Formats: sequence, structure tokens, C-alpha cells
Amino acid sequence: MTGQALMSNGSGIVIFGGTGDLAYRKLFPALYNLHVLEELPTDYQIIGIGRRDYSRWDYLTIVKEWLQKYSRVKYLEERFTDFSERIHYYKMDFDKAEQYPDLLAYFDEIKLQGEVIFYYAVAPQYFLPITKNLSIRNCRLRECKVIVEKPFGDDLTSAHALSKELKQSFLPGHVYYIDHYLGKEMILNIMTIRFFNSIFKGVWNKDFIESVQINAFETVGVESRGGYYDESGALRDMMQNHLFQILSIVAMEEPTAMESEEIKAAQLKVFQDLKPIVPTEIGKHLVLGQYAGYRQEDKVAPDSQTETYAAMKLLIDNERWQGVPFYIRTGKKLFSRESEVIIQFKQTAKEAEGNILIIKIQPDEGVYLKFNIKKPGKENGVQVVKMDFCQSCILENRINTPEAYERLLKACMNSDQSLFSKWDQIELCWNFIDQAIDSYQKYSGALYPYQAGTAGPKEADHLLLHDQHYWIEAEMFLEG
Amino acid sequence: MTGQALMSNGSGIVIFGGTGDLAYRKLFPALYNLHVLEELPTDYQIIGIGRRDYSRWDYLTIVKEWLQKYSRVKYLEERFTDFSERIHYYKMDFDKAEQYPDLLAYFDEIKLQGEVIFYYAVAPQYFLPITKNLSIRNCRLRECKVIVEKPFGDDLTSAHALSKELKQSFLPGHVYYIDHYLGKEMILNIMTIRFFNSIFKGVWNKDFIESVQINAFETVGVESRGGYYDESGALRDMMQNHLFQILSIVAMEEPTAMESEEIKAAQLKVFQDLKPIVPTEIGKHLVLGQYAGYRQEDKVAPDSQTETYAAMKLLIDNERWQGVPFYIRTGKKLFSRESEVIIQFKQTAKEAEGNILIIKIQPDEGVYLKFNIKKPGKENGVQVVKMDFCQSCILENRINTPEAYERLLKACMNSDQSLFSKWDQIELCWNFIDQAIDSYQKYSGALYPYQAGTAGPKEADHLLLHDQHYWIEAEMFLEG
Repeated sequence: MTGQALMSNGSGIVIFGGTGDLAYRKLFPALYNLHVLEELPTDYQIIGIGRRDYSRWDYLTIVKEWLQKYSRVKYLEERFTDFSERIHYYKMDFDKAEQYPDLLAYFDEIKLQGEVIFYYAVAPQYFLPITKNLSIRNCRLRECKVIVEKPFGDDLTSAHALSKELKQSFLPGHVYYIDHYLGKEMILNIMTIRFFNSIFKGVWNKDFIESVQINAFETVGVESRGGYYDESGALRDMMQNHLFQILSIVAMEEPTAMESEEIKAAQLKVFQDLKPIVPTEIGKHLVLGQYAGYRQEDKVAPDSQTETYAAMKLLIDNERWQGVPFYIRTGKKLFSRESEVIIQFKQTAKEAEGNILIIKIQPDEGVYLKFNIKKPGKENGVQVVKMDFCQSCILENRINTPEAYERLLKACMNSDQSLFSKWDQIELCWNFIDQAIDSYQKYSGALYPYQAGTAGPKEADHLLLHDQHYWIEAEMFLEG
Repeated sequence: MTGQALMSNGSGIVIFGGTGDLAYRKLFPALYNLHVLEELPTDYQIIGIGRRDYSRWDYLTIVKEWLQKYSRVKYLEERFTDFSERIHYYKMDFDKAEQYPDLLAYFDEIKLQGEVIFYYAVAPQYFLPITKNLSIRNCRLRECKVIVEKPFGDDLTSAHALSKELKQSFLPGHVYYIDHYLGKEMILNIMTIRFFNSIFKGVWNKDFIESVQINAFETVGVESRGGYYDESGALRDMMQNHLFQILSIVAMEEPTAMESEEIKAAQLKVFQDLKPIVPTEIGKHLVLGQYAGYRQEDKVAPDSQTETYAAMKLLIDNERWQGVPFYIRTGKKLFSRESEVIIQFKQTAKEAEGNILIIKIQPDEGVYLKFNIKKPGKENGVQVVKMDFCQSCILENRINTPEAYERLLKACMNSDQSLFSKWDQIELCWNFIDQAIDSYQKYSGALYPYQAGTAGPKEADHLLLHDQHYWIEAEMFLEG
């Protein structure tokens, strides 16, 4: 129970958006797992805040149903009984300032007097009002942390405003910008793969790497999130945070120590080194698309210009990466649900293709390596074969590997910032994305339609053809 | 039928030692496979020479039995019938000069008037007399090639004498020093693995490689070869040829072209760069052993000092390999039958072991890679996992991959020297081994006993302990 030592008694987590999808699907299962694994302090409390008129019993009944479906560890009735004793439901309108004194009084009532984590699991427009209203607790003097879900604003300006308010309300280092990708096993693994293996460490640079591709594909559309998504789009919803974070871990210099601060500094350097895109050249760097039928989705404008697909070519202007393109893609309603990093190594001889290393992030986690051997038989040809190690195929690993949110909640309880974004990173990423959006609107503006179940608009291929590259389709590779 | 174009009619192969183990087990199956695959010219003839009083029918009956057991391609009665028409048996005492004119007359009788390959599949003491006796055919004027089996002499002096005689009797480039290891698929594959893969090519040097280990283990003892072996021993029988050849392919610079001459030149450079062992330091470089029970073997001297095990530490004095030890081991009656090359990469961080690449040569052929990933779960530990590609596990490959001797016979017919040793290599290797033997006798002389079924004498570990290395047991790694 490492957490216990770091927390005074009467601590807990307060979830704004306690009746939302994120709370049910991710946060409660993560907290339940931590509970079962005895990683929560004994008196740790969980308060779900929502607008609905639920009794505690109603709430527990719903939470229980979700847990049975989504818990990583085996659901056990008696463990749920202990767990449910930690859980409270508190009904309020969290954008009404006048209701906050009662909330704080309720904390005292349930003896939640130690460290509190406020979890903003609500739509982003509530981040600012909640922060302002919470200021009556005077979190700069008391033990409070806040976990902010993405998106941190919808551009640099709004992100700045939010950051400023959070800085006023919370102590430095007490704001946790969550990017759940950073809690994923395989993202953490990228560092181990890069730095702890000679065969990769020795060739992780422009001399040996031809291109890097990062994909985050979804098969679903916007589903019930049309209202939010139509204001946001693929660039802001996925690119600016998840994909840029992965990019920075793939591309960073070796941190001087494998510690939070050193890793963050190395990542930041990548964002600083991102080569600005010349506005008139934006068409060679960014392709946006929208899936057929998107405008008919619930809460989406019938003439929406929001992108549901984005492909971007980035260059990193430093010694390690000079001239190596990073191609990053994300989209909804694509042919496959998968996230992966693909390292395309250079050809060393005209007879043989370059090596390909694939680090699969989801749904399966694993490492795949395509390499060249002699073609069996008399001829001296070259044959491409693959080796693989499927991390998540090992049952024991599947059970023992915490879900991203479990890892992230635990890290926040332990005041470990290494798995979270930092404001200076967010700022640079927003700045880059803002400029790209601005240039795109001025000099391209194209929104290419694509059919559901495809790899997105074919125009995305042109980004690579220019460099005589092509998208490496991981699934096809893995099957082939 | 590529072979046909290169050969005049009436060509064939003459096997001295036609009733020996090598002929039955390796040469006839290889020739039968070439026949079935229609890679022999239609009028190609095969003459087995032996001392025994066999009729052609007797001989064919024996050959057939071995073929049924050892042929790679499916044995078919009707294909054997065609094949048997090529085969002749000729009885003679091949150390009797007076019988050679009759042999040559017999060639005319069976219309073997084109190119002839003489195959020395006999004990090495017959190489010289056969060569001398064959000179009456005047092979420097006629189309003759000779394939010489190892060992090419038993030291530099005797090898020189043999080489001189062969040079006098045959045209330059017509002497084929066979090292059947060089015909093995995986040995050829080492070049593809090294030079056609960025991830290996980029790290194949002293900056990333900690040590190289090359093993050739046998489980059998001397069996019926005690007479020959007791005169030879592990250093001369295995180390000077097979292991040194593998070493040179693992260590060579990239050849300027993937052609026979360029590859040979690159290999030669390795032998030239072998760091001479200071005689008084021999104990830190060479350990010899003898298995318990060896002196009781048939035709072995009861006080034999012949080594059945040898382990050697070599250094290569050039820019690529400065300071990287090459540990090579071979022995009889060991715990496993296996040959492999093991590349131990350097540690890149104290938390993680170095990568290990294993290129298995026999009995299975394959590539195995041990690398580091993050330990699944909350901790940030490192876990060692392996990826593998078993070449010979793919049935299709097993059928399509020619046996070493098949490849070598074909290469000789096609006048391709790339899979054979060259005299200048042999000379350098003998010189090195001679000096090592000499120093060992002077300054160590120890012959460590070891039990059958073990990894050899434990004193071999000391060679590595000095460098803080250890023998990497491939089988244990592959199972673990």
C-alpha cells in the first residue's frame, strides 16, 4: 500500500462527471482494481458528482453493473461490498457557484478532510467554471490536486485561459493534465525498447531510419459525442495530444535519467525542434478528411466542416532527425481499430527492403520486426520474414498489466507527474496545431470525403508519394 | 539445367572413397537430388572407386538403400532407375600407381571424355599419392577439377606439400577445398542477415557488440573414425576449418560486391587481422579437453593426448573489432548437437541485459533475438523476451533447401569457388593453429577431462571469466 504513506487520512477523489461514460467505463473500474489490489488507503473515499437525482443505492447499482463488465480483476461480490462503502453520490449543478459551499460542507460531513483529487471528467467548457468555483476551498493552502481531461482548451488562447485559472487555484505541480495514452503499457515500453536494446538504440537516427509513422485509427464514428466532437475535430481531439505525445517519446533524445523531470525535458525539446510548416506549403504537410455520413450524426451541424481524419507530415529540425519525415494519422470510421508506431529503416542494399519495426499499442500490445534473410534454396535472393512478440497475448500479462487509468490515478495519488502532460508541452503543441489549422484554412481548406471502413481519403497518400514513401499498413503486414 | 551449358558431353564425377561413409551418406543423396531436379547434364556419369570386390549390381543395391534413407527429395523407384544408369563401380587400390593407366582406359571405355571432377572422399594420407598418380592424365591440359575434403594436411608444412602437388597437377582455380559448413544455408544467411538489415548492419561493431561466440557441438564420439581422429583432434578437425570459416564470415568487412572473389578477399582480411597470441599467454586463450572413455575407443592410443574439445579466445586487431573477444568452442560427446553463432550486444543501461542474437546453423536453422521490453505492470522493470524465426521449421523450406553437399557439388560443376575455402585462407588458418598448438604444448599442455553429455571441461569457463563473460547456452536460452 505505497499510496497510504503519501496520504493523510480522510483523503479521496471527487469526480465531476460521476454519471458520465468516462467515470463508469474507466475510473470506477480502475478504482475498483486498486481497491482489490489493496493499493488504496483504507479510508480513501470516492465521490461521484452528477446532476441526476440518484440515491446512493441507485448509483451503486449502476456502478456495479459497469464494474462487472469492465473490471480487469475478477469481479467478486464481497470485494464490491467493501468497495461500495467508499463510494458516495452527490447531486449538484457544477456550474452553479452557489452550490459549492454545500459540497465543501459535505466533504466535512463524510470526513474528507485530507488530500482531495478533483477529477474533471466533464465537457471542457466546465473546466473553467468548476476551477473558479472550487477556489473557495482555497486549494493553494490545502491539499488538493486536480486531474484535467483533454481537451485542454480548443486552441492556444483558451488553453492559456484555463492554465492561468488552474495556476491561480492550485499549487504548482498539483495540476495533472491527463493524456491516457501516456498510461498505456506500450507507450511506456517505447522507452525501454529504444534505450535498453543496442540493436535499436544504435540505429535510432537519420542514418538508419527512413521514416516514422504513427497511427491512431478508430472504427467508431462520433457516437453520442457529436456535440463535443463537432467543435473539436481530429486535430484537436487526437493529434494535438495523443499523437504528439507518442511522437515526442519516439523522437526524444535519451533523458539524462529515467525520471519524470528528465523525460519531460527530453520530450519538450522535440516539440521545440518541430520544424515550422511554411504556411503556403501546408498542402504538402496536412490532409484533412470527413467520413461520409458524418453530417447526419446526432448533434453535428448539417454543413459541418469538422475533420474526422487528419494526416500530417512533420519534420524535426535537429541532428538526430534531420530529413526524416514523421507521418502521423488519425481518424474515425476507419477500417481498423489500432494504434501503433512504425519505424521504417533504410534500405541497406538494393536487393532488400528496409527493416520495419512495429510497436503495437492497441488493441494488441506487441513488438514486430520485419527483417531480411536469405531466400531458402539455391538462389541468393532475399526473403522478408517477421519476428514478433505479442505482449498482450500472454494471459498473465493481460491480468497483471494495469489499465491506463489505473496507472494514472495511482501516479496522481503518488504525486508522480511522469505520466502526465505538462503545460509547456501543451502550449507548444497548441501553438503548432493552431498555426497548421490557420495555414490550412488559408492555403488549402480541402476537406476530403472518405467512406467508412476505408483507410481514409486517398489524398493522404500524396503526402508520402512526394517523398517516395507509402503508408505501411500494420495489419496487412502482420497478417502477410 | 544450368549445369549443362557449362559442361561438355561425357562429363562426370569420380569419387575416391566410393564405398565410404561420406559417399553413401552425403554425395550419392546429393547427386540423386540433383538428378531428380534435372540439374545434371543428361550424360553425366558417376564413378565410385573402392577396394572392395563389388559388382555394379552390389554397389547399386547399397547406394539405393542409403538413398532411401538420406535423400532430401522423395525417393522414387523409377527415378532411381534412371539415376542408376549413371553409376559405375570401379575397383582399384588407389595408392597403387600402376593401376591408374587402367582407370584412365576405363574412362575412355565409358566415354567419360569431358570434364571430370575428382572427389577425394578418402583419408587425408591418400590425397598426395592420388594427386601424384592422377598426374598421368595431365589434368593441367585437360578438363579436370578436384574436390579435396578436409583436413588439408595436419599442419602448415603438410598442407603446403599437398597444395604444391595440387598446384602442379591441376590448373589454377580447379582445386576446390571443400568445407561443407560453407554450403550450409544458415552460413550463407549470415551475410544476408548482417548486410541487408539496418538493425544489424548498424550495430555490427565494437561499439555495440560485447562478444561473439561460435559453437559446433557434437553428441557423438569418434565412432569408427578413431584412427583418423586420434591423429587430428578438435583443433585440426573442426577449429582450423569450420569454426574459422564461420568466424571470418561473421567478422569480415562488407565485401565490395557480393561475389565470390570479393567475399573471399574480405574473409582473408579477417585471418590477416587475427591478433597473434603471445605464447606465454596461451593459457588465457586456449583450453583443450578430452572426454572420459576416449582412450578406450577403437583405434585410439591408450595414452592418447589428443583433444576432443577445444575452446579458444580470439581477438581481431582492426577498427571494427578492437577489444571484442570471439570465443569459439567445439567438442565431441557434448550435451547437445548444435552449431550456432551468438552475438552478445553490449548493455546499454545497468537495468537491462544486452541483446542477444543467435543464428542457429544446425540442427535447426533459424534466427533468435533476445531483447528487452518493459516489465508488464506497474513497476518500471525490464523484462527479457525473445523473438524467433525458425527457418527450417517451415516444411516448404526444408524441402526446397538443398543440402550442403548438393549446393557444393553444383557449385563445383558451375566453377563457382565462392562456397569453397581458398589456399591463402587455409594457409593463414594453419599458421595460426600451428602456433597455438606449439605455444600450448610449451606453456600449458593441460588436457582437461570431461564427462560425456556435459558442456566440456569447466576450465573453459575461465577463458571468459577473465573478461567477465560467460558462455551463452543457446539451447537453454531458446527453451527459457
